[in-house]
Amino acid sequence: MSGQMRLTVAIVVASDRAFKGRYEDRTGPALAKFLGERGWEVVRTVVVPDDKPEISSVLKNTCDEGAASLVVTAGGTGLGPRDVTPEATREVVEKELPGLAELMRSKCAARSPRAALSRAVAGARGRSIILNVPGSPAGAVESLETVLDLIPHAIEMAAGHGHAGEKP
Amino acid sequence: MSGQMRLTVAIVVASDRAFKGRYEDRTGPALAKFLGERGWEVVRTVVVPDDKPEISSVLKNTCDEGAASLVVTAGGTGLGPRDVTPEATREVVEKELPGLAELMRSKCAARSPRAALSRAVAGARGRSIILNVPGSPAGAVESLETVLDLIPHAIEMAAGHGHAGEKP
Amino acid sequence: MSGQMRLTVAIVVASDRAFKGRYEDRTGPALAKFLGERGWEVVRTVVVPDDKPEISSVLKNTCDEGAASLVVTAGGTGLGPRDVTPEATREVVEKELPGLAELMRSKCAARSPRAALSRAVAGARGRSIILNVPGSPAGAVESLETVLDLIPHAIEMAAGHGHAGEKP
Repeated sequence: MSGQMRLTVAIVVASDRAFKGRYEDRTGPALAKFLGERGWEVVRTVVVPDDKPEISSVLKNTCDEGAASLVVTAGGTGLGPRDVTPEATREVVEKELPGLAELMRSKCAARSPRAALSRAVAGARGRSIILNVPGSPAGAVESLETVLDLIPHAIEMAAGHGHAGEKP
Repeated sequence: MSGQMRLTVAIVVASDRAFKGRYEDRTGPALAKFLGERGWEVVRTVVVPDDKPEISSVLKNTCDEGAASLVVTAGGTGLGPRDVTPEATREVVEKELPGLAELMRSKCAARSPRAALSRAVAGARGRSIILNVPGSPAGAVESLETVLDLIPHAIEMAAGHGHAGEKP
Repeated sequence: MSGQMRLTVAIVVASDRAFKGRYEDRTGPALAKFLGERGWEVVRTVVVPDDKPEISSVLKNTCDEGAASLVVTAGGTGLGPRDVTPEATREVVEKELPGLAELMRSKCAARSPRAALSRAVAGARGRSIILNVPGSPAGAVESLETVLDLIPHAIEMAAGHGHAGEKP
C-alpha cells in the first residue's frame, strides 16, 4: 500500500533567530532536499518563533486541514529557556509514539553522544504523524533518517488500516 | 525466592473483532502456551472489546482481587482509532515501568522494525505487574519473551521485598 | 567551555533506613569519591527519608539556591511502596530529559538486566540538572557513569548556551 500512497510532508522550523531574519534557515532546505529524494512531496515549509502557542497552533492547523500526512518540526528540542517544541507538540498529539523518539535518540547517540539530550517527541494527531528533530541541518537529517522508513506504516495505522505488530 | 513463588498470570485480549466473535482469538492461546511452558499458571483469559473503560476496569479488578501477579494484555497498542490499551493501562497503574516498554520495543525492533511503533506500557498496580504486548500471536509472544525473566523480581519489589539495583 | 566551568554537585540519598540511622549509608560516599575523581566539587551530601514531599523540597531548594549545577539522587527508583524518588523528581523538574534515563537503563541492563526495572528520571530545573540513580553503591556509580560526560553540556544548555544537536 505504501507504494501507492501519496507521501505529503510539511516542515516547521522553530527558531527565533531565523524567524527574525537574523540568519538564513538552512535546516528547512536540508530536510526538504532529503525528503524529496526519498519520494516525499514537501507541501510547505514555515519558520516560526520558539513560542509554544505559536508552534502548537501551526501543528494543529497543518494536521486538521489534512495538509500533510507527516509534519516534521526542526529545532527547540534542547534544554534552553526558549526550547519548547516538545511541549508544544505534546499539547496537540492525541497518541504519542515513544518508540520513535527512543529510536532517534539511541541511533543518533551512537554517532553523536549529545543526541541523548534531545527531548524530541513523536506522535499522531488525526491521520497525521508529527515528528520533532533537532535544529541543526545535519542533526535534523540524521535524526529523521533513523525513523523515516517507519512513517508510511504509521500513517496507514493512523488512518485505520493495519496494526503494529500484526504480520501482513 | 523466585524459585518458590507462585507465578500467576491473567491474559486480557483486547480486540473488537474477537470479542464480537468475528474471528477466533489465537493470541490468548499462544500466550497461555508460552507462559505455561515457562512455569506460569494461567488463572484466566478474557477477551474484551477495544474500549478504554472496559479494559481499565478488567485490569483494575484483576489486580485488586489479587487474582494474578502478572496481567498481560494483548492488542490495542497501535495507532488506530480503536487502539486504546496503553491509555487504559496508564489509567490504572500506580507506577510505570518505562524500562520494560523500552526493552520490548528495542529488542523486538531489531527483528521487526515496526515494533518501534508500539505504544505498549508496563507498570505496577498494588502487587501486580501489568504488561501490554501487541495483538498478533507472534508479536505478543516475542514481545513478552524479551522481558519475562525480569517479572518475578518486579513482583517481589512490588510486594515490598528487595530493590532494583541492589545486589543480592 | 566545559573545561572552564565549575562543576558543582549535590548528592541526595533517599533511604528510610539510612535516615533513621539503622545502617550507615555507603552510597553517598561512593558517589562522592567517583564524582571527585572526575573533577566535580561535591558541595553537600544529605540523607533524606523515602518521603515524596521531603525529597521534592530538598531538590527544589538545592536547585533554586544555585547550590549545585548537578543534583544526583540515590535510591527510591524501584517498585517498593516507599520508592517515590521518580515521582518527587518529576514534581520539580521543568523539562525532563528522557534520553538520559533511557541511556542509564539500556547501558546498565547490558550488565545487570534488572536495571531495566529502574524508574529513574532525569531533567532540568532552572540551571540545574537532576538525575536519579539506584540506591546500591555499585548500581549508583555504574548508572551515573553512563551519562556523566553529557552533563556539562546539559548544564550549558540549561544556562542558555548552545543547543542539543548543533555542531559547535
